[in-house]
Amino acid sequence: MAENELRVGVIGVGMMGADHADRLVHRVAGARLVAVSDPDTARAAALAGRYDGVRSVDDPLALVADDEVDAVVIASPGFVHEEQVLACIAAGKYVLCEKPLTMDSESSLRVLRAEREAGKELIQVGFMRRFDPQYAQLQQLLASGDLGRTLLLHNTHRNKSVPNPEFRSEMIVRDSLVHEVDVARFMFGQEITTIQVLSPAPTSHACEGVVDPQVALFTMAGGGVVSNEVFVNCQVGYEVRCEAVSERGTAIAGRPQSGLYTTRVGEPAGSWGGTVDPDFIARFGLAYDLEFQAWVDATRRGEVVGATSWDGYASTAVCEAGMQSLASGQPVAVTLVDKETLT
Amino acid sequence: MAENELRVGVIGVGMMGADHADRLVHRVAGARLVAVSDPDTARAAALAGRYDGVRSVDDPLALVADDEVDAVVIASPGFVHEEQVLACIAAGKYVLCEKPLTMDSESSLRVLRAEREAGKELIQVGFMRRFDPQYAQLQQLLASGDLGRTLLLHNTHRNKSVPNPEFRSEMIVRDSLVHEVDVARFMFGQEITTIQVLSPAPTSHACEGVVDPQVALFTMAGGGVVSNEVFVNCQVGYEVRCEAVSERGTAIAGRPQSGLYTTRVGEPAGSWGGTVDPDFIARFGLAYDLEFQAWVDATRRGEVVGATSWDGYASTAVCEAGMQSLASGQPVAVTLVDKETLT
Amino acid sequence: MAENELRVGVIGVGMMGADHADRLVHRVAGARLVAVSDPDTARAAALAGRYDGVRSVDDPLALVADDEVDAVVIASPGFVHEEQVLACIAAGKYVLCEKPLTMDSESSLRVLRAEREAGKELIQVGFMRRFDPQYAQLQQLLASGDLGRTLLLHNTHRNKSVPNPEFRSEMIVRDSLVHEVDVARFMFGQEITTIQVLSPAPTSHACEGVVDPQVALFTMAGGGVVSNEVFVNCQVGYEVRCEAVSERGTAIAGRPQSGLYTTRVGEPAGSWGGTVDPDFIARFGLAYDLEFQAWVDATRRGEVVGATSWDGYASTAVCEAGMQSLASGQPVAVTLVDKETLT
Amino acid sequence: MAENELRVGVIGVGMMGADHADRLVHRVAGARLVAVSDPDTARAAALAGRYDGVRSVDDPLALVADDEVDAVVIASPGFVHEEQVLACIAAGKYVLCEKPLTMDSESSLRVLRAEREAGKELIQVGFMRRFDPQYAQLQQLLASGDLGRTLLLHNTHRNKSVPNPEFRSEMIVRDSLVHEVDVARFMFGQEITTIQVLSPAPTSHACEGVVDPQVALFTMAGGGVVSNEVFVNCQVGYEVRCEAVSERGTAIAGRPQSGLYTTRVGEPAGSWGGTVDPDFIARFGLAYDLEFQAWVDATRRGEVVGATSWDGYASTAVCEAGMQSLASGQPVAVTLVDKETLT
Ligand SMILES: [Mg+2]
Ligand SMILES: [Mg+2]
Ligand SMILES: [Mg+2]
Ligand SMILES: [Mg+2]
Repeated sequence: MAENELRVGVIGVGMMGADHADRLVHRVAGARLVAVSDPDTARAAALAGRYDGVRSVDDPLALVADDEVDAVVIASPGFVHEEQVLACIAAGKYVLCEKPLTMDSESSLRVLRAEREAGKELIQVGFMRRFDPQYAQLQQLLASGDLGRTLLLHNTHRNKSVPNPEFRSEMIVRDSLVHEVDVARFMFGQEITTIQVLSPAPTSHACEGVVDPQVALFTMAGGGVVSNEVFVNCQVGYEVRCEAVSERGTAIAGRPQSGLYTTRVGEPAGSWGGTVDPDFIARFGLAYDLEFQAWVDATRRGEVVGATSWDGYASTAVCEAGMQSLASGQPVAVTLVDKETLT
Repeated sequence: MAENELRVGVIGVGMMGADHADRLVHRVAGARLVAVSDPDTARAAALAGRYDGVRSVDDPLALVADDEVDAVVIASPGFVHEEQVLACIAAGKYVLCEKPLTMDSESSLRVLRAEREAGKELIQVGFMRRFDPQYAQLQQLLASGDLGRTLLLHNTHRNKSVPNPEFRSEMIVRDSLVHEVDVARFMFGQEITTIQVLSPAPTSHACEGVVDPQVALFTMAGGGVVSNEVFVNCQVGYEVRCEAVSERGTAIAGRPQSGLYTTRVGEPAGSWGGTVDPDFIARFGLAYDLEFQAWVDATRRGEVVGATSWDGYASTAVCEAGMQSLASGQPVAVTLVDKETLT
Repeated sequence: MAENELRVGVIGVGMMGADHADRLVHRVAGARLVAVSDPDTARAAALAGRYDGVRSVDDPLALVADDEVDAVVIASPGFVHEEQVLACIAAGKYVLCEKPLTMDSESSLRVLRAEREAGKELIQVGFMRRFDPQYAQLQQLLASGDLGRTLLLHNTHRNKSVPNPEFRSEMIVRDSLVHEVDVARFMFGQEITTIQVLSPAPTSHACEGVVDPQVALFTMAGGGVVSNEVFVNCQVGYEVRCEAVSERGTAIAGRPQSGLYTTRVGEPAGSWGGTVDPDFIARFGLAYDLEFQAWVDATRRGEVVGATSWDGYASTAVCEAGMQSLASGQPVAVTLVDKETLT
Repeated sequence: MAENELRVGVIGVGMMGADHADRLVHRVAGARLVAVSDPDTARAAALAGRYDGVRSVDDPLALVADDEVDAVVIASPGFVHEEQVLACIAAGKYVLCEKPLTMDSESSLRVLRAEREAGKELIQVGFMRRFDPQYAQLQQLLASGDLGRTLLLHNTHRNKSVPNPEFRSEMIVRDSLVHEVDVARFMFGQEITTIQVLSPAPTSHACEGVVDPQVALFTMAGGGVVSNEVFVNCQVGYEVRCEAVSERGTAIAGRPQSGLYTTRVGEPAGSWGGTVDPDFIARFGLAYDLEFQAWVDATRRGEVVGATSWDGYASTAVCEAGMQSLASGQPVAVTLVDKETLT
């Protein structure tokens, strides 16, 4: 086992990256964390010091090039992804890049083309829901044909609240709704052809001028329709659900029913039920573990699993159209390059 | 319709009786409330005054004998049931008698014998759970054989709290557990042969010296086993459940899931779920309506439905054995007279 | 009680009308069925013969005018509603009219104006969901402000299948979606300002050329958004649900969880769960009972409860706009007359 | 990380042991599988050949003594546990021993005394439910006092079917009910003082002469009562549940609600619900992963977590009393040595 253990470097050790580092050390088999890098070099050094045999490397591109690093996890801010992923491709190293792949569809396309020219699939994009047991099971059920053809999806995506006032209407599309974009493409196995984003009267818990909640509609290439609620200041907790409607039945992934069922004292009488997860870490922690284990296992076999660079590109392109629709309220067509020729 | 409307008199207009009077006036078709009687004659007069055409009759036996009363509902305290039910039998009038039929098995047997001698079934005992849609559906499912032979029942019977300090350990057997006794006999279609009542360390919300909760076990004539929890100061609400375990599946009646499903704000995140019913009126109000409608309909046809005088007798006999077991903790055999000869 | 029993005539005794007749005789207190009328006079006579004291009247307008009829239930086809409701207004009789009030907004407006000129509210429109315990409870919860302002509704309306090939795309809007129109108006207490109907690729179980399922969006006067799925050939059963999303929580009415919870044998292992209602009678039978009891009680007090003639008019106007949107896929504005002046 | 990776040997590579070997290689961080041993040496060799750097060792005691083995997992049949665990103690090596610790309370006591004499806790017994997220959460909730004092537990333990005709009535106590014994002790943090095992009329799916299902009752040292259903041929699937009843609320771990919620076509209408796990691997696979990760982490820190040798001894003693009660149907007192002096 140890002889071919995968030596991993992590770029970006903010909340997500630090969690991923911990994951590699404490919850994933067959991998060894060997290097971390962060613009905040003190933060990187502190993290490295917490584990045996982990170095802090100031230059992220040096980390990518390092001979002792077999594969790279990118958890840095989106605007530096392009350069870092291109470096991984140049070095021929497998990379697990947190979403978004890059900031816009043009730059995603550059990455996609570089990977094609390198002649080898190297990129996995971190859409972790594909590794959530329920979402994975739903995709398998729909793909099995057991319920007939899929007709509709209804997605619900609620956060208790967003961390900062910079989380504007456009970010709800790009950082939150992007997960539903990937889910729709994953469940249908089809591209999205139009997107429409409606702007309901916002909750009073949203920052001034922010459209929250949002209701979005996708049309799939085969004519299916997807309705989406994204509500990032719902006050209750983190609830992410997908209901698929097929010709002979329906299926829901993500009903909030994990954990204990309790009855409790109340007035005039008590309540039954359970708790809603507080945040995405509580809800998708196991999905991240499974994603990382699958990435480590696949990388050691020389394969790529999960969302590909094409998925990263396509989801970015849909969100670009979504941001246009957010402004107009009208349906906007999504244009993608040809998947074979990338033109 | 009006020509053969059933004219009903109600004896005892405490909480239950007043509710039944209201039920007859406002929620049941084909019946007319014509008379009420109560030792608290002011209370009876006040109730009568609330509706058109309802008289207050001081003597309950005069109410039974009244030519304008076709049928009688008895909601008086248990210790006067024997005399009042016997009067109904003597008058040849159909009677819906709240449980218990009488205070002990000997007196129940006297009633049973009087009815047999009168040559006509006239008595329905108010075990309303038999009319609860879920309990009725469970009985039908078990009787259908769809799940194979029934092997076990697990009953849960919880009250938020009991109204007064007189609700002692023996009353928990006689007034609460008696419903599980009837449920077990109803679901299995068999008699109970032994009963054992265990005395767990009581909740601090029970009155001094009261055994609450109690765990009781029944053995059925066919070898089935029934486990029962009765907990009359559970603080949460009114929860009554029955889980049947059969050879090819299980079924639960009474999971607390009526009403809305909500998510709500909480700390660190919120909760999902619903509310527990506050009391038996909220939980079984519809069952009482259905019981009364069925009794009115059956009486107009000259029939008896629901629990019979035999059921009233048998449940009383089981509770007598249960009170012995409460004292000893040991299993106690239940002895019944022969159903045909009543000896 | 009997002296002021409400004497009711029923017009139209097809499936719905016959069920209502039975309801008046067997499940509603304080009313007496006295007359029925139907173009199929044999059918009317057969029904009348089934009950004591019920006459069959050939001319529905004669039934309305009959001195022995205190109030009228209209369960005839929609295209004769206008004439029959106007007759009730002329006779000063209370009427419970099945939806739709009339076939288009112009005729609804004529009825509305006639009622205004008569100077007395007489019309209840049969939107029975307002009497379903869960829908009623949801409306009360939202109106209470306990969860803050309501932001979104998500409605689900699924039928196992539709009875005949004449159930075309437009009928899905007018006969099915109309219930969601009323629900949205009832829950928000506001008018609908725009409606958009999308046409997903249809299920193979729909008749040739029929758009099923449909996804519809409403915008409310206060800016709230309502998403709706209507799917009339879902093959599974009858499932009608409403999820409200508010500032401090969410609530769902109509989750399919009535009845028993069972576990059952299966391969490789078994399943847990319950059954979906087969049809609207099973799902809303109790709501109809409660609606009728409330109508009888209110009529005897000289009041109107439930959906009014204005609600009937407004829902018809929204559906007219919806049928336009069904053709174009674009949002269509809803225009209503002024509620005070009716111009 | 690699320098202090825990080198683990596995004794017994039947179904459980092979699963544990796979777990160490593919799902647990910080450990390396280095050796396996099995009386079926061909099976051991085949397993070793499947992974890099794993040796097959014929003599299990040689595996224990091996300098390259830091810690041992025992998944061999129960009757060889005593010798193998004693060898681990003699070698001063940490050991994770599948339940039962040994075959009877006398031999468990010998192990317990040897460990005490060695002066260092080394043994974890594989009661994996303590690591199931829901069972762990329930224990924490009860220990927190949030619901007040715990009064009752109701345990349900159902297997689809048992693998072979040798699974007799006594084995149901020793191999199945033993988990409930540990759960009761874990949840209450108290010893069991009496056990009573009832013998209902068996299911027709049980082998001739086997008492299945069984209903068992425990009394806890503090007066709490635990009711248990164990049903090893329930035909449906693997369902393991624990309901705790406390002074101010109740809590259920293990309701069968993992996975997707679906609606499906049926007659007359469809069903809603989900699937029951087929077996303990599906239900408790994650619990085993967490147990192993916790054992590896604790061993590297020089600590023991989970069920101890005392827990192994006490559960064995309770099951011995349970087997007596199975024969008599009467309550049997449990006698334990003094925990401090072991006499
Ligand atoms: Mg590792
Ligand atoms: Mg009446
Ligand atoms: Mg009536
Ligand atoms: Mg390992």
